Amino acid sequence: MGQKIIVIGGVALGPKAACRCMRLAPDSEITLFDENSLISYGGCGIPFFVGGDVDNVKELCSTPYQTLRDPGYFRDMKGFEVKTNTRVTAIDRAAKTVTAKNLLTGEEMTCPYDKLVLATGAKPRPADVPGADLENVYTLTKLEAADAVRHLMESRKAESAVVVGGGFIGLEAAVAMADQWGVKVSVVEMMNQVLPGVLSESLSLMAKHDLESNGVDVYTGEKVLRMEGVDGKVCKVVTDKREIEAQLVIYSTGFLPNGQLAKDAGLEVTSRGAIVVNEYMQTSDPDIYAGGDCCSIKNLITGAQGYLPLGSMANRQGRVIGTNLAGGKATFKGYVGTWAVKLFAKAFCGTGLTVEMARRSDFDAIGVLVEQLDKAHFYPQHDITALELVVEKGTSRVLGIQGCSANADALKARIDPVAALLQHIQPTVEDISTLEAAYAPPVAAAMDVINAVGNAAENVLAGRCQVITAQEFYELWQNRDKNNYFFIDARPQKAGDAIQAEYPDWHAISLEGIQTRWNEVPKDRPVAIICNTGLRSYDAVLCLARHGITDVRHTMGGMQALLAQGGKIKK
Amino acid sequence: MGQKIIVIGGVALGPKAACRCMRLAPDSEITLFDENSLISYGGCGIPFFVGGDVDNVKELCSTPYQTLRDPGYFRDMKGFEVKTNTRVTAIDRAAKTVTAKNLLTGEEMTCPYDKLVLATGAKPRPADVPGADLENVYTLTKLEAADAVRHLMESRKAESAVVVGGGFIGLEAAVAMADQWGVKVSVVEMMNQVLPGVLSESLSLMAKHDLESNGVDVYTGEKVLRMEGVDGKVCKVVTDKREIEAQLVIYSTGFLPNGQLAKDAGLEVTSRGAIVVNEYMQTSDPDIYAGGDCCSIKNLITGAQGYLPLGSMANRQGRVIGTNLAGGKATFKGYVGTWAVKLFAKAFCGTGLTVEMARRSDFDAIGVLVEQLDKAHFYPQHDITALELVVEKGTSRVLGIQGCSANADALKARIDPVAALLQHIQPTVEDISTLEAAYAPPVAAAMDVINAVGNAAENVLAGRCQVITAQEFYELWQNRDKNNYFFIDARPQKAGDAIQAEYPDWHAISLEGIQTRWNEVPKDRPVAIICNTGLRSYDAVLCLARHGITDVRHTMGGMQALLAQGGKIKK
Repeated sequence: MGQKIIVIGGVALGPKAACRCMRLAPDSEITLFDENSLISYGGCGIPFFVGGDVDNVKELCSTPYQTLRDPGYFRDMKGFEVKTNTRVTAIDRAAKTVTAKNLLTGEEMTCPYDKLVLATGAKPRPADVPGADLENVYTLTKLEAADAVRHLMESRKAESAVVVGGGFIGLEAAVAMADQWGVKVSVVEMMNQVLPGVLSESLSLMAKHDLESNGVDVYTGEKVLRMEGVDGKVCKVVTDKREIEAQLVIYSTGFLPNGQLAKDAGLEVTSRGAIVVNEYMQTSDPDIYAGGDCCSIKNLITGAQGYLPLGSMANRQGRVIGTNLAGGKATFKGYVGTWAVKLFAKAFCGTGLTVEMARRSDFDAIGVLVEQLDKAHFYPQHDITALELVVEKGTSRVLGIQGCSANADALKARIDPVAALLQHIQPTVEDISTLEAAYAPPVAAAMDVINAVGNAAENVLAGRCQVITAQEFYELWQNRDKNNYFFIDARPQKAGDAIQAEYPDWHAISLEGIQTRWNEVPKDRPVAIICNTGLRSYDAVLCLARHGITDVRHTMGGMQALLAQGGKIKK
Repeated sequence: MGQKIIVIGGVALGPKAACRCMRLAPDSEITLFDENSLISYGGCGIPFFVGGDVDNVKELCSTPYQTLRDPGYFRDMKGFEVKTNTRVTAIDRAAKTVTAKNLLTGEEMTCPYDKLVLATGAKPRPADVPGADLENVYTLTKLEAADAVRHLMESRKAESAVVVGGGFIGLEAAVAMADQWGVKVSVVEMMNQVLPGVLSESLSLMAKHDLESNGVDVYTGEKVLRMEGVDGKVCKVVTDKREIEAQLVIYSTGFLPNGQLAKDAGLEVTSRGAIVVNEYMQTSDPDIYAGGDCCSIKNLITGAQGYLPLGSMANRQGRVIGTNLAGGKATFKGYVGTWAVKLFAKAFCGTGLTVEMARRSDFDAIGVLVEQLDKAHFYPQHDITALELVVEKGTSRVLGIQGCSANADALKARIDPVAALLQHIQPTVEDISTLEAAYAPPVAAAMDVINAVGNAAENVLAGRCQVITAQEFYELWQNRDKNNYFFIDARPQKAGDAIQAEYPDWHAISLEGIQTRWNEVPKDRPVAIICNTGLRSYDAVLCLARHGITDVRHTMGGMQALLAQGGKIKK
């Protein structure tokens, strides 16, 4: 007989590790415990179930070929036992046993193991304000809660909802409820931006604008103080700035790794309670593996321990554990942090560090943003893509990239190559400039937007231009009575003229015109220049420099970025 | 004053190098010569102009912000001179001068240079059969020819057309004429497949089927012997197997680098006539740079000199040359060969070597193909993606990847990360299995198709299953009276039953059923097993192996691959 293996946790990593091990070492005796009744579900699909894209919760528990992944499936098809509704309460590492309790019958059992896998996942950070126990206050990580929220949607019992937390799940849930069910949704985020930690402030404004343009109210930098109810049901959320009516509140303020069982067994955990593993996914006890949302993993860019609770990570780690359970030597070296989220009209995607994260990790970093078409401009379908490359000054090292586009697939195609490089080398800006990407007019421009952002970063790092974000340009413009800036619109003349007709301070001097009209630009005032995407204004900056006008700020991403962030120049 | 620089050639690389140099070293004196009247055009856009997606040929000569790139544009906006209709006839390296002739006036001039750039491009391989000089026989690389073909389309003077050559431009032109103008198109390709050199034979069948399903006749392994005409106009193409009516013939059988000028000047060129350059893009004369379609560049996978005439390559190399003209030290290290092409319903994309190319380069290579959804199966929009990973046995080194999908952007998102790795490291199958890619249900499955193909390759390399292509399965099935194979359909029972009702030799034993029905499978005959995509049949193979049935071939990509290749089992 093979080894006795116990797996604790049956969502993503646990079943994956067990299946992989059974394929490689079919004589293994594996038992998987999960305290819930439904297992092996796509937790990331919950917002799509709430929204109605997914019709039945069982679709989330099914294989791509429509087989329900229940205990019978794993027994018959994969050859291992699954005990649901069964909680493992303790690990005895000396005796190599676990104690488990059937939550339905109360029955306790002690089971021996040769190897143990901890796939205990994470729990949502609980609502920590008064009113958290009111009816219709949910977190969305369990299928049961998802079912309840979907029911509220279908029965039209929630006309307004508040989502607390502007991260992935919170925003996906907000979009699902507003878009599919017409619910009035407000998002309250404590940090000063949505998608904190994964988007720069600049790109986060584009996410906020996409939400607001589609009827979702977004309140950033705002703290929930309490929730109030009527007849035990929530009816209102009170923040430090306002009161918001709500028949439904979804709390999604992050996850806490379920590391207590490991900690109680004397295994090493981080201060946040995440289990520490080596590159073979072994805990401090080599006979005990752990992976997925309960674990801390290494950030390959900073070298520090980090946390990335994503189903895609869990699946990859699960396969590594399965291989190693069967005697292999597979490794999981760490993560760079690659993600995507689709809101209403816009998708966002990124990898590595944002400029703010990089600075917090003591990199002397800048973010360089471009806006460019994702396909040949003469090809009839194309979307404008915003990409922000995060680079370290001095070394030109690339630390991350994030972006925004209406075409989620096309955006992913620009992010994932950088993610691949970040996993293996320390790429430089030149590596992005010369990145060889698939080209044909229906999928890219000959100078792809990914190369363009590398080129732009190289120009900034070489000091060929001083850049400002669209948001900074907008603030300068709005405060033009308090500063001394000279504003230039380098777009084709007619576009700029239309604004100058309203605002004489707006100087429409097209790139074509600036070759002869540079002498209209004062040398004793700072200049802020904008065009449609940043291409023309960069050439205008070089032209002005040739005439000795050098105190010039060029607006990254131009009017496209400004409008995407919700900025508005024309009356 | 700065350096005198002469650039020969004004399509992609020449203007790019000149613009870049002027930005970095604005005191340079640059003159660009081109023998044609139109310059700086997107040559890759020609099929889209023929098809009507692009309405005016000037769109191909315009910037993304609709400025026409003519000599005036380059003079006023970029600060350098462009002389069109002017052919450089000789280079005197000792005197550092070039001789040029104005093709309109006949005027000759001798111009000195400090640095010279050869961007002379490539010419289409000429039609080398009788009838090549008939009217309405074209190659498609010049705008003038494109204009003539478009005119034939608009005036409906060509009801049928033959495209000779099944490469990118040939197929794009075939699609454009058939799809947009309803012309009856036939493609004749001398090699035994379309897209030779970039697609495996297996994937090329999917391209062929996509063309044929949309009314294009495809004749592979067929040689054009002559063209015949009436009144000087082409009316028929005669091959070694048939005669095809045609009022229009487009020859697109590859390119020949324009290296004669360089060769005459004593610069090093390859036996095919391509100019040899180092990683700074310098020719054997360090004051003379060359790049783009006239050059040989290094294949980073094989280490050999190769040739990749793509606009995307030219743009990247042009920037490197521009930087170096201005005193920089930028490098272009070589190419891995990344491309894309969109046909009718399907797009194709790839990088690196195909399995056949790898074998020709003496790698002991196999191609492993999977078919999988490109997004979470519960997400409402998704397409099936075929990916074929080319790997070296023994080392597990990844040599290339190619694929097919209805969603060109989503396919590119899987290919480009591998392209990025191939440029910098020698990736292994494990690197593909653990590749971290952006994940959310609207853009990927938690176990992405790119990871899945890595996993599948690992299983094959480890000897866990013997694989056959869908084409091989189809041939075995069609020749079942001549072989002794036992055929199993492991799809859900009903799907297999429907075929078994027609063909008793088709054994419908679903994956669910095989756990108990394995004893129906004979041990003394080879077994060929198929399912929908390859997932279920792989599990079935493992199940049979546990019962001692090991002479089993598992069909990569399953029925999805078979159908995409035009295979047909049911009556």
